[in-house]
Amino acid sequence: MTEQSRRLVLAQRPSGMVDDTIVRVETVDVPEPGPGEAVVRVSHLSIDPTIRTWMDDAPGYLPPIEIDAVIRSGGLGTVVASQNDHFPVGATIFGMVGWQDHAVLDDTPGAGQVVPDGMDPTAVLSVFGVTGMTAYFGLLDIGQPKEGDTVVVSGAAGATGSVVGQIAKIKGAANVVGIAGGPEKCAWLVDELGFDAAIDYKAGPVGPQLRKLCPDGIDIYFDNVGGEILDACLANLALNARIVCCGAISAYNDRGDAPGLKNYFSLITRRARMEGFLILDFQDRFAEAQGDLFGWVLDGKIKHAVHVVDGLEHAPDALNLLFTGGNTGKVIVAL
Amino acid sequence: MTEQSRRLVLAQRPSGMVDDTIVRVETVDVPEPGPGEAVVRVSHLSIDPTIRTWMDDAPGYLPPIEIDAVIRSGGLGTVVASQNDHFPVGATIFGMVGWQDHAVLDDTPGAGQVVPDGMDPTAVLSVFGVTGMTAYFGLLDIGQPKEGDTVVVSGAAGATGSVVGQIAKIKGAANVVGIAGGPEKCAWLVDELGFDAAIDYKAGPVGPQLRKLCPDGIDIYFDNVGGEILDACLANLALNARIVCCGAISAYNDRGDAPGLKNYFSLITRRARMEGFLILDFQDRFAEAQGDLFGWVLDGKIKHAVHVVDGLEHAPDALNLLFTGGNTGKVIVAL
Repeated sequence: MTEQSRRLVLAQRPSGMVDDTIVRVETVDVPEPGPGEAVVRVSHLSIDPTIRTWMDDAPGYLPPIEIDAVIRSGGLGTVVASQNDHFPVGATIFGMVGWQDHAVLDDTPGAGQVVPDGMDPTAVLSVFGVTGMTAYFGLLDIGQPKEGDTVVVSGAAGATGSVVGQIAKIKGAANVVGIAGGPEKCAWLVDELGFDAAIDYKAGPVGPQLRKLCPDGIDIYFDNVGGEILDACLANLALNARIVCCGAISAYNDRGDAPGLKNYFSLITRRARMEGFLILDFQDRFAEAQGDLFGWVLDGKIKHAVHVVDGLEHAPDALNLLFTGGNTGKVIVAL
Repeated sequence: MTEQSRRLVLAQRPSGMVDDTIVRVETVDVPEPGPGEAVVRVSHLSIDPTIRTWMDDAPGYLPPIEIDAVIRSGGLGTVVASQNDHFPVGATIFGMVGWQDHAVLDDTPGAGQVVPDGMDPTAVLSVFGVTGMTAYFGLLDIGQPKEGDTVVVSGAAGATGSVVGQIAKIKGAANVVGIAGGPEKCAWLVDELGFDAAIDYKAGPVGPQLRKLCPDGIDIYFDNVGGEILDACLANLALNARIVCCGAISAYNDRGDAPGLKNYFSLITRRARMEGFLILDFQDRFAEAQGDLFGWVLDGKIKHAVHVVDGLEHAPDALNLLFTGGNTGKVIVAL
């Protein structure tokens, strides 16, 4: 009997959270590699908010996931069969493996990267992976921090936000304020990660807290959530402030109904800049960032947390955690 | 009998348009200059949207106009009495004269500038004045136009917008689209000023027109209006687009109720930048801009229009024109 492999495909486009009606489990034969291809047994999936945006039939930086196609996702796996010398059997590979037990990597450049032996797989998917790259280039290239800055980060207990705040401290920010949901996450930011303060957005309106904790205004706001929190930050900018637009988690599940931004006028009065970026554009500089991050992790200056969910079949629940705020740190599915 | 002078003071803060209940006419003696001061007989007022923002009790780049204080405004006048060698009797002065027949200039730096003889006063207040400076530095420094760009300007028949579009053409933009209200203004932009196309926002939704006229997306959007038109432009950005936030006329009279921005997420997907500026920050570079603008006007590459309203008492109506779209070009009150 041929070995079987499960895969999760997009059954229909979601209008809100992802449930059983959106994702369908299929069972197929384990694929055989064609010329130039390698077959990977997936071990870990990287669960990122952007996956939710790919499920919409909306223009984005990558095409939408097609109906009946495997859910697109980064992840790690081990090569189990290969007709590609770059991906030898037994190697650990990072690539866009998708939500499935087995993935086929072809020979297009960038289809997968071999992970050096001895690396912690959760670190490869978080602080040394796309998450860490996003924090690094978003804060440093787009935010351009200066010594003494006040830096505010939303989604601060998430995979990217938690690293942003720590890099800001390394770069000399005088005041790093994280915005997160719930007292445990807020305590973790301050007690474990060295944030100067944290705001629990579930405990009350963010605006008054921002005014109290950032009396001279916000120099850099690293935005992972959009919506009302972005609007509150817009109302509390310092002169020449920079807003790094990284994500808008609050709007991914209800783009139509999310309240619009009201306070964009302060971009003028505060001579401020609001700029988006995609980490794909920085791919040729990943080694630079990974070198810095590796050193900081070794020095104990950057800590990272992972939230592991077991089982391919729970990938949709893992994705939903990002929007309910159920995670602290990077969400990973272990297969 | 002492000569009398009228002045318009802020009676109460407006919630919408400015009418007789907001502005009060007072009659006072013509002032005498103290040591270091000069008294100017005001001849022309520069009517700018920002005056409306100063009437609100809201944080801005200048403090709000105080209740019972003269309405703050730039303008031109002739020195009629002086104890300041920089401002001799008979000189024409540009400064923050306010809505009044006579203004007192003190000896603080920048209180007033002497205008060279022979300059057309309407050009001093428009293309060579703050209006032209705003168009010049906003487009060139914040927008950073490149050869072949698609440039969209709102408030395009206004004093700043009309100059922005013409500078964009001078700098090699392939496609300059103006957004204005009404067929006459749109015809003026294309037939007289050399815009490639114009969209009449009063004739229907702007979004479909933008998609048709900017098939490759918008590289630079120079925003004078904010609100729904800004949102429509956000939805039609090219990669690495720049939005120059100059003004938000649509929101000045109803900040609370204006619809919020929904499409800011495209700042991420299009790797775009949205940046505000204030022309005050460029004061030390005005000579550079005035030199360029002077040359372009002489060469016939930049045309400017003025909309003159007669009589100090009509200054509030002149201000309202900016929000009803009743003007083409720079609004000036002649006293």
